[in-house]
Amino acid sequence: MNKIRIGIVGYGNLGRGVEKAIKQNSDMELVKIFTRRDPKSLGEGFDLVSNANLYKNDIDVMVMCGGSATDLPVQVPSMAELFNTVDSFDTHAKIPEYFEKVNKSAKENNNLSIISAGWDPGLFSLNRVLMDSVLPEGKTYTFWGKGVSQGHSDAIRRIDGVLDAKQYTIPVDKALLSVRNGEMKDFSTREKHTRLCFVVAEDGADKERIEQEIKNMPNYFSDYDTTVNFITLEELKRDHSGLPHGGFVIRSGLTGEETKQKMEFQLELGSNPEFTSSVLVCCARAVYKMREKGQTGAISMLDIPVSMFSPLSDEELRAKYL
Amino acid sequence: MNKIRIGIVGYGNLGRGVEKAIKQNSDMELVKIFTRRDPKSLGEGFDLVSNANLYKNDIDVMVMCGGSATDLPVQVPSMAELFNTVDSFDTHAKIPEYFEKVNKSAKENNNLSIISAGWDPGLFSLNRVLMDSVLPEGKTYTFWGKGVSQGHSDAIRRIDGVLDAKQYTIPVDKALLSVRNGEMKDFSTREKHTRLCFVVAEDGADKERIEQEIKNMPNYFSDYDTTVNFITLEELKRDHSGLPHGGFVIRSGLTGEETKQKMEFQLELGSNPEFTSSVLVCCARAVYKMREKGQTGAISMLDIPVSMFSPLSDEELRAKYL
Repeated sequence: MNKIRIGIVGYGNLGRGVEKAIKQNSDMELVKIFTRRDPKSLGEGFDLVSNANLYKNDIDVMVMCGGSATDLPVQVPSMAELFNTVDSFDTHAKIPEYFEKVNKSAKENNNLSIISAGWDPGLFSLNRVLMDSVLPEGKTYTFWGKGVSQGHSDAIRRIDGVLDAKQYTIPVDKALLSVRNGEMKDFSTREKHTRLCFVVAEDGADKERIEQEIKNMPNYFSDYDTTVNFITLEELKRDHSGLPHGGFVIRSGLTGEETKQKMEFQLELGSNPEFTSSVLVCCARAVYKMREKGQTGAISMLDIPVSMFSPLSDEELRAKYL
Repeated sequence: MNKIRIGIVGYGNLGRGVEKAIKQNSDMELVKIFTRRDPKSLGEGFDLVSNANLYKNDIDVMVMCGGSATDLPVQVPSMAELFNTVDSFDTHAKIPEYFEKVNKSAKENNNLSIISAGWDPGLFSLNRVLMDSVLPEGKTYTFWGKGVSQGHSDAIRRIDGVLDAKQYTIPVDKALLSVRNGEMKDFSTREKHTRLCFVVAEDGADKERIEQEIKNMPNYFSDYDTTVNFITLEELKRDHSGLPHGGFVIRSGLTGEETKQKMEFQLELGSNPEFTSSVLVCCARAVYKMREKGQTGAISMLDIPVSMFSPLSDEELRAKYL
């Protein structure tokens, strides 16, 4: 059987995770990693993003590993002219507009693009739709953490006098317990998650001011109970170098005469980027299988039967998994 | 918008659950319930199964609520000649053969049939495929319970001297904890679940013999640690009249350089038949939507994109759920 030939665009945490995940899937092979850096400095197997068009006949699916802010909105519509693509675009408010652009480009060029894959958006979205569909009367809750939020860590790093920082998002036990008990309450932002920050300050920096700037930062921290701990750079490197994450999607619902039903999906991730990469890689398989069946345009994980994620045939899946 | 017109075949726990679930879904309407009993004794809205062919133009999807042992293998291939169908066939070893029969019948008559829907097979199967696809290196575990196993309760009832009985399947905490800790051990049947029985004996029956017969029953109990409690009929009715169930699908896996990742799906069900019915009803919507797109033959929940389960449009799902 021919292997699915994969290309990677972008070689940060996500791209490196995809490179590792491909090695775990024997039906795939990595053809090339495309980067904006000098490919020679990275060794064999790399080429410039601007040379990707030379590989049109050698790559079945391009896994797009750039950032949602500036990379993906430009790169994906352009790559979708040449390749089937998978990406993890996660700027929620812009997804409909992004979808339209990628859909047009992919459709016009007979390619298939999976947008906004990963775990949220992605596996969590899939579970929210599934749960709401099975139990139409009820409430669905999403909790994130315990895990490192890169966006929030970056926001702290931009504060004057901060050398480095890590921010953990932590679900509030009391709220989680209430949801699991089927109480179906409404929670404020503050009641659902707390934020825990580890900050390395510059020598002589005003820690009191830094702490206040963090706690009062709109959108990022001001709606949460936030704890700020100042630590040394050594402590940060020793104790907070990982990128763990995870979370919960829980639906509490009622059937019949007020019968309580509960569905829950959980992730506990040692590495957020490596897990997201693993999702992208099984989406690359899905895009390949669905394109073979004739599908083109843009889709999300909501549009993919789970059998498409698997290397097994429909017969094997029915016999082993049903 | 036209409502999806549903028929129900079989009016036991499952059929009654489907009847209730349809009321929770405003895009559906119940046309008729088909039964082998005298329909007049049940009131308006019922007809004989043998009259189902008269409703060919009035029903979009027939939800098949008979038993897997004798009803479904006969009824579904025959109903699939006239209607799109959904069923919960769960005799695992016979699924491939059952699939072939239903597929042939549905395909030849341009209908679509979803087989083996529910939660296991069904939602649990879907999660097992999804988890194994995302994390190819790892181990997937399924635990059932705490919940009532109807098959095991029936087996006890067949013992001489037993008036009535309820059997609970209970996951062993130690095994569940080990799995959640990512230890990836292998477990014997006995190490994963225990069986708890509440038995009402006839006056003067030999309870010691009954207990031994239960504990030594091959396939059902002999491979498990089984506890037998004798109680009165009043106690059974008061404390054990519900049909709760649930369970866990957990995958512990590794990515990159031995990074631990864990995915988990849980159900905690106040009523097993009502929940299964709710799954069947959202599968009825999926069968309707997929048939509209031209699909025919037999499929399982593994072949259905989650967007098909939802009453919302693709645009609404992208905007609200991604």
